[in-house]
Order: sequence, then C-alpha cells, then structure tokens
Amino acid sequence: MGEQQIVLAERPEGRPTRETFRYESIELNAPDAGQVLLETLYISVDPYMRGRMNDARSYSQPFELGAPVQGGVVAKVIESRSDALKEGDIVVGMLDWATKLVVDAKTVRKIDASLAPVSTALGVLGMTGMTAYFGLLDIGNPQPGETVVVSAAAGAVGSIVGQIAKIKGARVVGIAGSDEKTTYLKEELGFDEVINYKTEDVGEALDRACPSGVDVYFENVGGEIGDAVIDRLNPFARIPVCGAISGYNEKENIGPRVQSKLIASRARMQGFLVGDYGKRFKEAAEQLGEWVSAGELKYEETIFEGFDNVPDAFLGLFDGSNTGKLLVKL
Amino acid sequence: MGEQQIVLAERPEGRPTRETFRYESIELNAPDAGQVLLETLYISVDPYMRGRMNDARSYSQPFELGAPVQGGVVAKVIESRSDALKEGDIVVGMLDWATKLVVDAKTVRKIDASLAPVSTALGVLGMTGMTAYFGLLDIGNPQPGETVVVSAAAGAVGSIVGQIAKIKGARVVGIAGSDEKTTYLKEELGFDEVINYKTEDVGEALDRACPSGVDVYFENVGGEIGDAVIDRLNPFARIPVCGAISGYNEKENIGPRVQSKLIASRARMQGFLVGDYGKRFKEAAEQLGEWVSAGELKYEETIFEGFDNVPDAFLGLFDGSNTGKLLVKL
Repeated sequence: MGEQQIVLAERPEGRPTRETFRYESIELNAPDAGQVLLETLYISVDPYMRGRMNDARSYSQPFELGAPVQGGVVAKVIESRSDALKEGDIVVGMLDWATKLVVDAKTVRKIDASLAPVSTALGVLGMTGMTAYFGLLDIGNPQPGETVVVSAAAGAVGSIVGQIAKIKGARVVGIAGSDEKTTYLKEELGFDEVINYKTEDVGEALDRACPSGVDVYFENVGGEIGDAVIDRLNPFARIPVCGAISGYNEKENIGPRVQSKLIASRARMQGFLVGDYGKRFKEAAEQLGEWVSAGELKYEETIFEGFDNVPDAFLGLFDGSNTGKLLVKL
Repeated sequence: MGEQQIVLAERPEGRPTRETFRYESIELNAPDAGQVLLETLYISVDPYMRGRMNDARSYSQPFELGAPVQGGVVAKVIESRSDALKEGDIVVGMLDWATKLVVDAKTVRKIDASLAPVSTALGVLGMTGMTAYFGLLDIGNPQPGETVVVSAAAGAVGSIVGQIAKIKGARVVGIAGSDEKTTYLKEELGFDEVINYKTEDVGEALDRACPSGVDVYFENVGGEIGDAVIDRLNPFARIPVCGAISGYNEKENIGPRVQSKLIASRARMQGFLVGDYGKRFKEAAEQLGEWVSAGELKYEETIFEGFDNVPDAFLGLFDGSNTGKLLVKL
C-alpha cells in the first residue's frame, strides 16, 4: 500500500464521526533544496482541533474542506536536502496527518531523542505540557496553601496542571470522569482531593473538597462543571481558560452568566493560547524536563496503533475515556 | 414631624417596590464623646445596593431585615463631641438612610466644600467616579486608538468611563437606552459612536460602530448587551466587570457561556470593587478633580428632592430613566 493522508471530508454538525474524515492516497515528490522527506512516527490528537473543523472565526484558521487535517506530529527524517537536518533526525512540527510527507526543513524543530521518549515532544515536554505550564503559572499564579481546582484533570493538560500546582505548594482538587481516573490522580499523582463528575453532584463534592473555597480554577471543560466551580470562587480568584471541551460539539452553549459572580469574587477569567508564549517555550521545556527527570512530574500516554486509527483516537477525546496524552503511533 | 429612617421591610423577589422599604420614626440621643450629630444633605442611590437586599453571600454583608438601609451620604455636622470635626463641617460616609443621625466621627470623612459642590463627593469625585477611574485604567488599560465600549454609558459610572477613555486617546462607543441619552453622550461628552439598545439591534450596531472590533468593554449591565459585545472582542481584549444591572432583579440569568469566546480572543474578564482600591483613593480624587477643574470631565446629576422620595429614586435606577449620578437632596 502506498502513502496516505487524512483530509476533512465534511464539517461536523455537533460531534465528529468517522465520516468527518477521508483517507486519500498521495504521491510524494522528491524533496527540493531546503526540504526534507519525513516518515511520521506519532500523531497528536487534541481537543482544540475540533474548533478548526468549524467554518467560523476562531483563534486559528479553519481547516479547509478536502484539505489535510493538521496537528502536532513527531517524524523521522528519511531524506534531507537541508543543511539543518540529516537522515535519522527526529523532528516535531504542526504537520499534515499523513504517513509520509515532504516539508521545508524550517517548519519543523529537531528534538533530542536521548533526553526523553520522542513522544513526549507532543505531550509533557510539548504543547500540552507548556499549555499547563503557562496557563497555571502565568495566569493562575497559585500560592502555597491556596486551593487549585482543575477539570479534565486526568487529561494531557490537566494532569500536568495538578502536579505543577502541587510543586508550587497548593492544595489540588481534580475533577475527572471515572473512578479509575480519580484513583490515578490521587494515588499516582498526589492530588489532594478528586471528584468523579459522572457519579457525584459536582457542587456538593466541591463544597466538601474545597472547604476554604477556590483560589485558582484551571478551566478545561466549561459547561455545568465550570458553572459549579465559578459559584465557589474566593476573593481575587484566577481562572485560566484553556478549553471548554464540553461545549465544542454543542450548537448552543447556555448557562449562568458570570458577570455578577466575577464582581462578587473580584475574580479574573482569562483565555490563553500556548502559541502566545512562543518566546518562553525554551524556559518551559527546560523546567518541565527538569521536573520529569527529577520524578516530580509524571505523565501518562494513551497510544493508539496505526494510521487507520487516527480518526478513532480523535473521536475518543470526546467520550472522556483517555488518561493523559492521546497519541497515535504509526 | 420628627426624625425618620428607612429600613428594609422585606427582601425583594425580583424588582424592588415601595413595599421593600418602611419609614420609621427615630429618637436621637445626644452624641457621646467622639461622636457627632449629623443632618443629612444628600443620599446616594446606587445599583450595587440591590445585591445587599438579598440574603446571599455577596461582596458585602446583606442588609438586615428591619434594620436601616445604608449607602453613601453627605451630611452636615450640627453638634460635635469630637476634636476632628466641628459644627458646620460637611462630611461623607456610608451611613444609614436617615434625616439625622449620631455616628462616631471616625466613620465619616470631611470634605472641602470650597473645591466643588458637595454632592460631587457622592459622584464624580466619589465612589462612582473612582469606580470608573480604577476599573477603566487599572483593568481596561485603554491605549490610544483602541476601541472602548461602555454600557449604561449615560449612567454615573459609564459617563465618566467614556470621558476618561477619550482623555487617554481611545475611540469610545457608548450604549444607552434613549435618544436623549445618546445625543447627550455624543454632543456633550464627545463619545465617537453611540447605540440606543432600545431601538437598535445591538449586534448590528456594534458591527457598524466598531469596525475594528472591541479592545476594552467596560461592563455595567450584563445580559444580552454584554453577550453581544463579548462576541466582538479583539485579541487580548480586557473586560472590567463593574456591574450587571440587567440581571440584578432576575432569578435566573442565563446566556451564552463565555469560555470559548475568551479563549478565541485571549481576553481577560475581571470583576472589581472600588473598595479594593482604598489605598489609591487620594490619587484618584486628585486626578478626577483636576480633570473636572480643567473642563475635561463633565458630570450630570439627577436629583430627587426630599426624604420621602428616596425609595422612588432607588427604584428609578432600574427603569433606565436617569442620566448621570442619581441623588436625593433632603
């Protein structure tokens, strides 16, 4: 079988399905001067990509219908016509979902495969780890003894957020969707309290888990979980708004307006994108790498096998079944 | 007729009515050491007071049933047993709604009646002016050429917000509820664009008035007006959240959730209370006084006459009929 890519076949109404995607055979040209031929090793599937499937003003360009879906990819250089990269180098970049591809060498970044498994360049040492790092530290700014609540706490971002908050001396409460996940967060990652939103009343559980209120809420999900946390903010609380996955597939996303709650708590709610912190990526990667090496920061990966399973891996983001970073290994 | 006070007769469900209040006769003792006897000159009625009428956790203590309503008051000292104040001094403070009252001298602040009309201590040089000053400058931080939108723009806070934004070189769009008000904002106060939310589709009007999007939204009203502005935020927009008067009398205040919008714009939405800026009141009062003296900052007052009309003045806040600061002169 030849090389393949995955294109956006139709814009999903609500939740994406297998029909959202279409496989296509591709013919690859030999690389021109400055280009490299890459063989894909890992593909990252991430919730924010759902937004790019809509034909609407958003923080990044919509995917084009019939054009390849793009996301975080780790790949191996198998032919190089660039001085910057040589055969065998491992690189990471925002690339088409394809088994092989030819790109300009300057669109990818070489990673040091001796430091950590190369898949971490898509997770704890890559976009999701940096998202946790900048959102929590730059906007959330947790202080020792403060209570930090994180939703989607067993996810690629949430699990790192909670652990960094612990490193900074905060009390950490994680909200996740299964007893397996909450047990993992408490037993393996050292979260102080955990809430299973599928079996517990989130408001009552927050009252028990946060007797002193909420100082930082790292928002990954929105919806009724977000509503419940925002009802329990302490004075001068901070809410880094990273995601709102509960609403990504909804046409209408309606809930209590936040204005009066923000006044009562003098809270700050701030959206952010990791891309805005490009100048500080090096700082973040070094700090995250140190914490990982020291055993202070653990990470989990859920790995699907095979290019055929990329759509299923993506769809799995929305059923809440994964723990840690969701990847596809080719 | 003797002295009187106004107490909270019942907690309003929804919009307050005359039955929310009850007049009571009072007997005043002579002031003790350190106390003064005051005669009330002006009573301030303000939207935030509605929140204190609920029996709910809020940013300030709820008013007690059967106890006097309290708010901003300007009064004259008619008898003093304090070294800090003498007969004839004019003072401002958070005091009971009463025709006369005895208080500790240290609970009030003397004002210089030679600088400006004493009523301004409740408005442009007092709480509402400072609310505009700190919310706009500290959280909104408008830059020259940026677009600032303010709702309740003809109100005591909004009218000052828009003028300070103009002083800072921003383009100012005001939303208000009558053609009389929008004409006032444009002709008298120099707003660049105005929107009458009662006769125009706010979303369409915003598209016309803000062709470059919204950089700062000074939020006074919430509700559908707030929703419409939040749909038009520029990257890194700031939203000082000062009030949400449209929802104060509603049991349910439901609308589009903001999380995804804040991420897309990387906007910051932050509640504040003027009381949190206590250490900078002197700075604000001096700067506001300078702008007023220089004719750069204009203010309007809507003045009801007589203690009998205090409840009606308060109720008038919620029908959108007043321009500028709403006061009662005794």
